[in-house]
Amino acid sequence: MADKKVEAITSMEEDFAQWYTDVVVKADLTGYTSVKGFMVLKPAGYAIWELIQKQLDERFKATGVENVYLPMLIPEGLLQKEKDHVEGFAPEVAWVTHGGLNELQEKLCVRPTSETLFCDFYQKDITSYRDLPKVYNQWCSVVRWEKETRPFLRSREFLWQEGHTAHATEEEAQERTIQMLNVYADFCEQILAIPVVKGQKTEKEKFAGAVATYTIEALMHDGKALQSGTSHNFGDGFARAFGVQYTDKENHLQYVHQTSWGMTTRLIGAIIMVHGDDNGLKLPPKVAPTQVMIVPIQQKKEGVLEKAEELRAKLSEIARVKVDATDKSPGFKFAECEMRGIPLRVEIGPRDIENNQCIVVRHDTGEKLTVSLDELSDKVTELLEVIQKDMLETARAHRDSHTYTATSWDEFKDIIENKPGFIKAMWCGETECEENIKAETGASTRCMPFEQETLSDVCVCCGKPAKKMVYFGRAY
Amino acid sequence: MADKKVEAITSMEEDFAQWYTDVVVKADLTGYTSVKGFMVLKPAGYAIWELIQKQLDERFKATGVENVYLPMLIPEGLLQKEKDHVEGFAPEVAWVTHGGLNELQEKLCVRPTSETLFCDFYQKDITSYRDLPKVYNQWCSVVRWEKETRPFLRSREFLWQEGHTAHATEEEAQERTIQMLNVYADFCEQILAIPVVKGQKTEKEKFAGAVATYTIEALMHDGKALQSGTSHNFGDGFARAFGVQYTDKENHLQYVHQTSWGMTTRLIGAIIMVHGDDNGLKLPPKVAPTQVMIVPIQQKKEGVLEKAEELRAKLSEIARVKVDATDKSPGFKFAECEMRGIPLRVEIGPRDIENNQCIVVRHDTGEKLTVSLDELSDKVTELLEVIQKDMLETARAHRDSHTYTATSWDEFKDIIENKPGFIKAMWCGETECEENIKAETGASTRCMPFEQETLSDVCVCCGKPAKKMVYFGRAY
Repeated sequence: MADKKVEAITSMEEDFAQWYTDVVVKADLTGYTSVKGFMVLKPAGYAIWELIQKQLDERFKATGVENVYLPMLIPEGLLQKEKDHVEGFAPEVAWVTHGGLNELQEKLCVRPTSETLFCDFYQKDITSYRDLPKVYNQWCSVVRWEKETRPFLRSREFLWQEGHTAHATEEEAQERTIQMLNVYADFCEQILAIPVVKGQKTEKEKFAGAVATYTIEALMHDGKALQSGTSHNFGDGFARAFGVQYTDKENHLQYVHQTSWGMTTRLIGAIIMVHGDDNGLKLPPKVAPTQVMIVPIQQKKEGVLEKAEELRAKLSEIARVKVDATDKSPGFKFAECEMRGIPLRVEIGPRDIENNQCIVVRHDTGEKLTVSLDELSDKVTELLEVIQKDMLETARAHRDSHTYTATSWDEFKDIIENKPGFIKAMWCGETECEENIKAETGASTRCMPFEQETLSDVCVCCGKPAKKMVYFGRAY
Repeated sequence: MADKKVEAITSMEEDFAQWYTDVVVKADLTGYTSVKGFMVLKPAGYAIWELIQKQLDERFKATGVENVYLPMLIPEGLLQKEKDHVEGFAPEVAWVTHGGLNELQEKLCVRPTSETLFCDFYQKDITSYRDLPKVYNQWCSVVRWEKETRPFLRSREFLWQEGHTAHATEEEAQERTIQMLNVYADFCEQILAIPVVKGQKTEKEKFAGAVATYTIEALMHDGKALQSGTSHNFGDGFARAFGVQYTDKENHLQYVHQTSWGMTTRLIGAIIMVHGDDNGLKLPPKVAPTQVMIVPIQQKKEGVLEKAEELRAKLSEIARVKVDATDKSPGFKFAECEMRGIPLRVEIGPRDIENNQCIVVRHDTGEKLTVSLDELSDKVTELLEVIQKDMLETARAHRDSHTYTATSWDEFKDIIENKPGFIKAMWCGETECEENIKAETGASTRCMPFEQETLSDVCVCCGKPAKKMVYFGRAY
């Protein structure tokens, strides 16, 4: 890279965790307040979330999802109705004990997730098969009292969407569970340029109260995994706990079958750790709040700022464009574009204007192109598409070259110590063995992928007959 | 109206409050859970909020507003930093006292509004004049521990946007305060078809901690006023309390000047009470989630549903359209369109298809038109515009014919008892007099309108020299 950085970012190789923090701070994504464990999403960070939200919401609605909004507080009695669920969440919720000047008769927790509220609502709202299916989603924030926090990855409050559906049959619920997992996977690949592995969580790793949890797992640049979205099939467990019933066409009372599925601001952490480098953030064009930054060169010369503004107006028809007309030096502006991950930079100066051309720089490769102003719109459209596609391919190549196969325990331990990435290995299906693997290596089962392979007949750890091929990895 | 109602709605004349509740329930806008004082926004209600949010957000961004997200919890010490502000809000907040399994060292309140958090954030984020202005907004929910609640109008949790800005000068802050009030007023008129009176709140009615509060006041169908949006100028009061300072161009340390402004889901209550009638909701086209409902007639006859679907596909290019292909009777479907306030209904049956035509019914007037299918798109576009405009004019005529002038105390009392609406009257400017008027008549000062008139030289109540013309009214 020819361009200098504005301020030193710790090198990824040297200290990945510090690199991550540096990027978050220097790309101006988050800020601090006096509320411990909570973060501020600053304009540059929130604008990425707005683009995620808009494009994900469109995909939801195309499958028939309707948005709703439920209360942020859950009475203790409601949280306790489903046994596994309360065990999973009670230790990490925040409790409201006083409202106004009075102590509450029943304390309320700030929602860590809203299964119990949706069940309570569905119990009142569903009576007949005509009321089904309910395919509802809400965009909101949730609170979980985490001990250690990191911007986007783990925070006491985070933004997310949570879909909650109710269906007449088991089959329909399972179909919706997988449908939404596929929406998530496709969204990650097409919009975030992040390839994912789709699969099912083991019993140990599934959601509190679910019959089955499905996940998409992405690989970060440092070889650690990040769970990027989950979709749960609840069967009729919640329905039985909350009495959510409907009368079917034969006038029999039946329990509904439910699902839930969620993605969070954690995705912004994934974007940073999959695409970023030592110069800062790299945003896929589809989630870049600014896709093209126009930097005027010798901007005090007559006609330069006017021309930059003219290009901005024209490019605005096809992309999200800004002009940096501040009094900083061009080199400083270039470095800021790098840091903030803007996909394309357009440089325009007096000599360019004379020649009816400009310089276009791809942020992902550093490539510089001289482009005729007459062809600029077409070229920008083309480049944004190419960058989006290339970023996915680069991430896929990284993921594939960091996915290993272990058929023996020694091999497994060697890989986990020396080659950060996914490990595909056979597993006996026992939770105890899964726990041993985690205790010895720090690697957890990421998922039992839909695309199963037979690597050997025996469990990589205990040697008993193998039941499933599993993706293992250390994870965020 | 020719169409019958699905279920009886209490007549407005008979009991306006019950009419309101009936419409909210029967148009399926909100639902109940077991969380007392909180409501569920169901799909039909939330979709209106989404349209409000989208169109308001566009207007914000056109003035340079950037969206952010700040924590939902505020440490007690932070809330207490500005004296007037804490006095205003402390009695009505919810307190979190436990996080996870531990009691918190400092209790946290669920945000009732976020001035204190923004100040704390700005104190850390602003150092130089180059960092100004900050023109930030957030979309979120807030909690206020209300004793009596009504859907949309008063609820323990509601959705809103809160803008918080910081400026170098007093003038710039005042300019932004008025600019946002104008954005609100224009939005209400152009999008919600609700005319408003713009003005300043009195000392007694201004926001806790503000130097000046500006408001837009709308008149409901029953003659009561609804405060529909407020914009506050804080001067440098919060900045001094929180130490929000910047160094100016001459390297002197200065306090910033701040504003805040908000609109809430209360606007949905305003839409109901301004436009609704005894048949249910009436939605202005610009906030109608479904603008056109196509009702197939004799839908089992060959080709009817296909034609309805063909019209839907075509109209989708210019409007939000649905087909009601359920097995309910056409009469039932018509009534549902009424109840839910859908602006246009299109009826298409076998005979219409033969004649290459359909029936288009305006919900606001009940007018039925026979329209050639070749001209349907143009006609629908035109009608949606006409309805939007006519609804504003109807609401304006109602507001104007229910705005009275009182120049004596007897006249004031007579109007307040017998003619529900706004009362314009002169006022001495004394809080004591304002309190007397409220105690005796239940009418509060709505605002000191920007468009002042001189109705007489003396206060309508006490007879002392008049300082301002005020809009009075009973209010929600």
